[in-house]
Amino acid sequence: MPGTSALLPTADRDVVGAALQETLVDLLHLAATAKQAHWNLYGPRFRSVHLQLDEIVETARTFADTVAERAATIGVAPDGRPAATAKAGSSADVPAGPLSDTVVVATFTTAVADLSVRMRRRIADTDGLDAVSQDLLIETTAALEKHHWMLRAENTP
Amino acid sequence: MPGTSALLPTADRDVVGAALQETLVDLLHLAATAKQAHWNLYGPRFRSVHLQLDEIVETARTFADTVAERAATIGVAPDGRPAATAKAGSSADVPAGPLSDTVVVATFTTAVADLSVRMRRRIADTDGLDAVSQDLLIETTAALEKHHWMLRAENTP
Amino acid sequence: MPGTSALLPTADRDVVGAALQETLVDLLHLAATAKQAHWNLYGPRFRSVHLQLDEIVETARTFADTVAERAATIGVAPDGRPAATAKAGSSADVPAGPLSDTVVVATFTTAVADLSVRMRRRIADTDGLDAVSQDLLIETTAALEKHHWMLRAENTP
Amino acid sequence: MPGTSALLPTADRDVVGAALQETLVDLLHLAATAKQAHWNLYGPRFRSVHLQLDEIVETARTFADTVAERAATIGVAPDGRPAATAKAGSSADVPAGPLSDTVVVATFTTAVADLSVRMRRRIADTDGLDAVSQDLLIETTAALEKHHWMLRAENTP
Amino acid sequence: MPGTSALLPTADRDVVGAALQETLVDLLHLAATAKQAHWNLYGPRFRSVHLQLDEIVETARTFADTVAERAATIGVAPDGRPAATAKAGSSADVPAGPLSDTVVVATFTTAVADLSVRMRRRIADTDGLDAVSQDLLIETTAALEKHHWMLRAENTP
Amino acid sequence: MPGTSALLPTADRDVVGAALQETLVDLLHLAATAKQAHWNLYGPRFRSVHLQLDEIVETARTFADTVAERAATIGVAPDGRPAATAKAGSSADVPAGPLSDTVVVATFTTAVADLSVRMRRRIADTDGLDAVSQDLLIETTAALEKHHWMLRAENTP
Amino acid sequence: MPGTSALLPTADRDVVGAALQETLVDLLHLAATAKQAHWNLYGPRFRSVHLQLDEIVETARTFADTVAERAATIGVAPDGRPAATAKAGSSADVPAGPLSDTVVVATFTTAVADLSVRMRRRIADTDGLDAVSQDLLIETTAALEKHHWMLRAENTP
Amino acid sequence: MPGTSALLPTADRDVVGAALQETLVDLLHLAATAKQAHWNLYGPRFRSVHLQLDEIVETARTFADTVAERAATIGVAPDGRPAATAKAGSSADVPAGPLSDTVVVATFTTAVADLSVRMRRRIADTDGLDAVSQDLLIETTAALEKHHWMLRAENTP
Amino acid sequence: MPGTSALLPTADRDVVGAALQETLVDLLHLAATAKQAHWNLYGPRFRSVHLQLDEIVETARTFADTVAERAATIGVAPDGRPAATAKAGSSADVPAGPLSDTVVVATFTTAVADLSVRMRRRIADTDGLDAVSQDLLIETTAALEKHHWMLRAENTP
Amino acid sequence: MPGTSALLPTADRDVVGAALQETLVDLLHLAATAKQAHWNLYGPRFRSVHLQLDEIVETARTFADTVAERAATIGVAPDGRPAATAKAGSSADVPAGPLSDTVVVATFTTAVADLSVRMRRRIADTDGLDAVSQDLLIETTAALEKHHWMLRAENTP
Amino acid sequence: MPGTSALLPTADRDVVGAALQETLVDLLHLAATAKQAHWNLYGPRFRSVHLQLDEIVETARTFADTVAERAATIGVAPDGRPAATAKAGSSADVPAGPLSDTVVVATFTTAVADLSVRMRRRIADTDGLDAVSQDLLIETTAALEKHHWMLRAENTP
Amino acid sequence: MPGTSALLPTADRDVVGAALQETLVDLLHLAATAKQAHWNLYGPRFRSVHLQLDEIVETARTFADTVAERAATIGVAPDGRPAATAKAGSSADVPAGPLSDTVVVATFTTAVADLSVRMRRRIADTDGLDAVSQDLLIETTAALEKHHWMLRAENTP
Repeated sequence: MPGTSALLPTADRDVVGAALQETLVDLLHLAATAKQAHWNLYGPRFRSVHLQLDEIVETARTFADTVAERAATIGVAPDGRPAATAKAGSSADVPAGPLSDTVVVATFTTAVADLSVRMRRRIADTDGLDAVSQDLLIETTAALEKHHWMLRAENTP
Repeated sequence: MPGTSALLPTADRDVVGAALQETLVDLLHLAATAKQAHWNLYGPRFRSVHLQLDEIVETARTFADTVAERAATIGVAPDGRPAATAKAGSSADVPAGPLSDTVVVATFTTAVADLSVRMRRRIADTDGLDAVSQDLLIETTAALEKHHWMLRAENTP
Repeated sequence: MPGTSALLPTADRDVVGAALQETLVDLLHLAATAKQAHWNLYGPRFRSVHLQLDEIVETARTFADTVAERAATIGVAPDGRPAATAKAGSSADVPAGPLSDTVVVATFTTAVADLSVRMRRRIADTDGLDAVSQDLLIETTAALEKHHWMLRAENTP
Repeated sequence: MPGTSALLPTADRDVVGAALQETLVDLLHLAATAKQAHWNLYGPRFRSVHLQLDEIVETARTFADTVAERAATIGVAPDGRPAATAKAGSSADVPAGPLSDTVVVATFTTAVADLSVRMRRRIADTDGLDAVSQDLLIETTAALEKHHWMLRAENTP
Repeated sequence: MPGTSALLPTADRDVVGAALQETLVDLLHLAATAKQAHWNLYGPRFRSVHLQLDEIVETARTFADTVAERAATIGVAPDGRPAATAKAGSSADVPAGPLSDTVVVATFTTAVADLSVRMRRRIADTDGLDAVSQDLLIETTAALEKHHWMLRAENTP
Repeated sequence: MPGTSALLPTADRDVVGAALQETLVDLLHLAATAKQAHWNLYGPRFRSVHLQLDEIVETARTFADTVAERAATIGVAPDGRPAATAKAGSSADVPAGPLSDTVVVATFTTAVADLSVRMRRRIADTDGLDAVSQDLLIETTAALEKHHWMLRAENTP
Repeated sequence: MPGTSALLPTADRDVVGAALQETLVDLLHLAATAKQAHWNLYGPRFRSVHLQLDEIVETARTFADTVAERAATIGVAPDGRPAATAKAGSSADVPAGPLSDTVVVATFTTAVADLSVRMRRRIADTDGLDAVSQDLLIETTAALEKHHWMLRAENTP
Repeated sequence: MPGTSALLPTADRDVVGAALQETLVDLLHLAATAKQAHWNLYGPRFRSVHLQLDEIVETARTFADTVAERAATIGVAPDGRPAATAKAGSSADVPAGPLSDTVVVATFTTAVADLSVRMRRRIADTDGLDAVSQDLLIETTAALEKHHWMLRAENTP
Repeated sequence: MPGTSALLPTADRDVVGAALQETLVDLLHLAATAKQAHWNLYGPRFRSVHLQLDEIVETARTFADTVAERAATIGVAPDGRPAATAKAGSSADVPAGPLSDTVVVATFTTAVADLSVRMRRRIADTDGLDAVSQDLLIETTAALEKHHWMLRAENTP
Repeated sequence: MPGTSALLPTADRDVVGAALQETLVDLLHLAATAKQAHWNLYGPRFRSVHLQLDEIVETARTFADTVAERAATIGVAPDGRPAATAKAGSSADVPAGPLSDTVVVATFTTAVADLSVRMRRRIADTDGLDAVSQDLLIETTAALEKHHWMLRAENTP
Repeated sequence: MPGTSALLPTADRDVVGAALQETLVDLLHLAATAKQAHWNLYGPRFRSVHLQLDEIVETARTFADTVAERAATIGVAPDGRPAATAKAGSSADVPAGPLSDTVVVATFTTAVADLSVRMRRRIADTDGLDAVSQDLLIETTAALEKHHWMLRAENTP
Repeated sequence: MPGTSALLPTADRDVVGAALQETLVDLLHLAATAKQAHWNLYGPRFRSVHLQLDEIVETARTFADTVAERAATIGVAPDGRPAATAKAGSSADVPAGPLSDTVVVATFTTAVADLSVRMRRRIADTDGLDAVSQDLLIETTAALEKHHWMLRAENTP
């Protein structure tokens, strides 16, 4: 069975696997929600925010792929099915329908900040357990926090 | 309000908008499920099917984007949030955990065939209402059915 | 004589040719006017609208070329000379001199919406007469209406 | 068996399949004959016509591939074997040996015009049966007729 | 107001601005007329002249853009609207309908030669007033005169 | 007449020309048959063999072009018309309809091996007559035999 | 010694060398200050201005390199060390800490305008002394003034 | 002497240098053995495994280069001569002659797993001694373990 | 205010911010000084060292940008203004005027070695405070030390 | 001394070196003369022949470089100085001043045919002496004779 | 006759034409001589100087082409035939046979300096006669003098 | 069994196979040794020789791959395992530890010269046995001897 890997002791694998799985659904949730805003956006800053959201989607999708494949590598089956993402993923919450640019920038500023807090906890949780996975979580956090800075700066009047 | 567009009469817009919205969540569901299989795959044909699934993901994501923006264009707010996709999208249903290449090829052969049936009904539903949207549905169907042919051929022993 | 082509019956060719010729001058007019706004623009959104206008120019020029060559193909000599465009083309009307970003976005939102209405009438007029030309008109309309959506969203406060 | 596809009712599939198969051998015949002229050409316009013929080959080969795969998709096995092309394909007929540029331009002007007539009949035949295949036939016709226009213009003294 | 720029003394700006504005409409007129010939061309040299005309269009459009932005830079609003181009631009004059390759080459040989004469006068007019604008006019002239040489050589039996 | 070239003595030219002409139709036949298999393939190895066949097509088409132009260069008119290929070309023989991956790999393993034998005879036949043509035949053989190795390896259980 | 070059008379070289050296530190100062603003920017136009500043940095760095190498070419050692730039360079002056987009656009509009005045004086100073260096100063000015126009337009409410 | 570097205390350098040297010969051994399998492979999965092996070679060669240069950087002369690799490198052991795809996938699955164990020990050994080298070992391990996952999945029936 | 970020506790942020700020000015100082040497270089190894210095500039500028944006991300305003770099940056010190290749290689060998020592202290200082920033410092050090190795090797007779 | 190479026996080296040196000046002469015609060309086929001549220049320059470096490799100093080319090179002879397209095509058809005769003699002369150099002469001849074919075909009315 | 152009008064054309013709043969001579050195070079700096010479060749060839086409544009037939270059061109004079790197760098330092002197005289000669040609001469001089600087720096011990 | 190929008679295959196998290990040995020198190099010419060695590695690896696949093609299993290379390969012999640039250039000049002698013997050995393999050996020799020339020139004081 492909899920059985001797790379890590079972206890370590459970902790690391959980950190990766939680990161996966958070990133998939972020990608989907940012796309939703990308499509339903309006306001004077439409073009600029529309493009910025696609850069967030690109970051989220790329790291989701790497994180899921790392989970598989250590023998933990990643779950990125729509229901799993809808249930456990927790990035930005946006209502249905049109979304103003001001609301979108504010919403994602908060959402990515919250995600960063969760990522930092996962970095701590995996410390000493699997340097490779922890390194990937650090790299993911770096990319997310850079988006946070740009959103925060744009959200400051 | 950005959702108000005079491009189509209201009744026509409702029908066309519904076809686009249903297509959107089907494509997002397909993209997510194909990624799930891409990550959890095993079997002697791993590398080949792994790559093929990413081509399906690429098709599904690209057309999802175009379909959602077309909905926005005719004044219907697309809903591609995780919950919407989980609830209404209906492409392949795969269990959690590892998936053998044989099962994956069989599952997606059926799933894409079913999706093609729904797409053809939507092409019929939008006939005479909005040539631009219908043309996009036809183009989407062409791409999906080409994937179906390749899956079907691969699924034939 | 190169204009004589047996591809279409004369009556059909006249209708299709007129639709293509009207589309041609509308697109050339749009390209020229969007360039005019691109050069004379001012306002806090300068950079973003400046770039967006060049994307509209690109769309208009590319489809103008295809539409004119399709007219030539069915044996109707396209007329895209400056005087023809100035007289018959009817996209956005902008005054000489500097143009504020707010005015430009509003003006082109209306202009592209009007152009879309004319395109839809031409799609209807050519129905059943020349599937190839009609398909080209549909494709042109799709691109123009996507620009309309983005302008409309940007024009919504 | 991979040929069995439920995409279309049998009767419709037969008509659409025939249209695609006839188009396939016509395109393969055109590609081969244009290559033959590309190699055996002479005359003052050698370089220009030599390059133009390769563009026709490129068009013919690309659409032949798409048309054949569409046939396979709807469950009709395409036949592009040398004998099938030699027997049923009917584009330009050129004698063995050197070919002057004047003769080549005239021959292909006529040949592509004839092919266009057959394509238009196939577009009509498939109307209402399979929108995806019909759309592909329209797209193929557009490309062929553009070549016809350029050949016709070049063939006019 | 964006048109107010202290880069040049008013008198100098008027002279330089006029030279740029006249160049702008000449280039836009040339681009439009060369496209007209590109679409309506016929004759044994069709392919070669068809491609050459697009190179002239490319030159004319690129320099028109640079010239218009230079005018805006020195505080003179460029006018490239269709009516302005139709009225003041004066490059090649071609009749409606099909155009033989021989006539096209002869017409543009003369037209670009005339344009070169006007460009040289503008280089002289702006001498000592604005080195940057003059340099741009010189560069534009270099490109136009290279086209003139190639047309002239092609126009010589 | 373009066919008259003093590059080679007549007797030598006849031998070399025959070798090139036979190679030409063999390569065109191979390209067409490999495309036929590319379209009609089924089986668990579909994707891999489907791609491999297109690489064979690419090799066959590229060398066919070079071989035909070399024939023209030495004053022998190449014949690559559909009937010539159907009659004289002798690569893989495949029945109409769907083809299993196992059969396809076996068929082309044999076919390319046979072709290699014929190529080696042609290399011998042209020895000392025209070093340039012989070099091209050697290069063609190298490419075909590499395909043969990969097919043979894939054909070994 | 590499600094000794006979390209220009000593007196001319001193004047031209001074113009190049002053331009060098101005450009290096501009590049550094624009980067400072690029990093410390905030406000609703963050993304757009952030990108625009990097285009200014690119222009300043590229011309600084060319200007410094031209100085070396005429035998004048360019001084672009940090202290030299800090002391003699005089582009935009920005305070430490966060910078609002409105302030940044206004500051750089003024700064680049002032720089343009200095550049025009240097073009005058080098007139008749070294056509190559003067040409480079004109080209540098053209690029800077284009940035000035875009900043000025963006700075106009 | 270039080997003398003060970057690290001698004791630390010895430990880190040994970890890098052992990694180097393991990677060179892996690259050579994977190439050997790439050339001697047979079986129905030939094409897929043939390509996969080259991706392993690419990974091994790229990291070998970086690891060797890091050793040189800390003042330890890397030894990647053929004899050193043959003696100390210990990745997959394959017999001479043809290798079936099944055997190859199984062999490399085990070999890369073993290599991963050694890499993890080296990450532990260098902890706290040289963060830069340790980071490189982590990155190398990430790439190797990803290959291990794909091999393992492919090796699961 | 964009400087306020809750990513890190204040005390940690101060330490990490100081490490990043010091790194920033060191990198900007290095980039400027390496450019100075690039322009004022002479000696038989001119071309080789000239190119090598630009690679150092590229490394220094790229990491300066990333380091500054990381500082902004954690809420510390980076200061890369010319005066700050001139005052606090401390890489290579080169005199005004021409610089021999031998001197330049020796100077930068020492300078980059010194910079490496400071980087290693900053990696230690930030340990346990911010894994993301520390990771960036490690990556920066890796790139600088690779340059050091190449300079050191080149500096050894 | 770098010219002393033990690759070939002296007698062989003299023969092979002479063949390479003669080929070198012939190719340099051809490149220069084709450029001369490229610049002085006129006539209705100007554009087509102008481009074709540059392809001949490209062939001649590329092989001249390879041939000269091969001579250096076997220890024979190549002589491609202007005087050597003017004296010994013997490709097309064109008069000063304007050249009609008809004359140019005829002149180069003859010139490249003559060059081909000399190349074939050199292939014979080097037979059995140096397989590497002979192979290069064969490859050069192949490229030149392909140009001859295209010129000959274009030269046939 | 294509040589007759009304762009310039005859007297002016004679002066400008002479400047362009002299520049042409100087550049062709430089390109040929630099290639000669590129092939016959030896010495410890072989690789570096070998590459640098090809950059000089590239500069010389590119400007030769532009200069020759400018001459043709103003109605003066350029003469770049081998004999003309051998007779009138006067760049570096190198003996036959191997050339040491030291000699080559010294020779070309002097040669390009001399060429620069001639270029500056031609810039003066054409002043006020043809701004376009003069601008081209300035641009050519800029490129040559940059090479001179690099050679001079490399030539300084 | 994939090793059984009827392409060549057994006796011929043994000779050709031996030539290819010996070439393979020589090339792999050269690639490994050149990498060793690339990493352990020091001296004033470090950068230039460092880059040159990688070009030798690239040549050796590319031809090793082609040679090994040719052996497999004719039915001889290539042996490129580390032990085989260490035992039978015989290119440059370098000691462990740092290597001065002077020693490296001298060592590889001799090594590649020796390799060239062995290659020429293999070209002779395979004459008349397998034109395809012999052609590949000639091509490999051409590339190696070009490296020899450049090393030899660089090795000449």
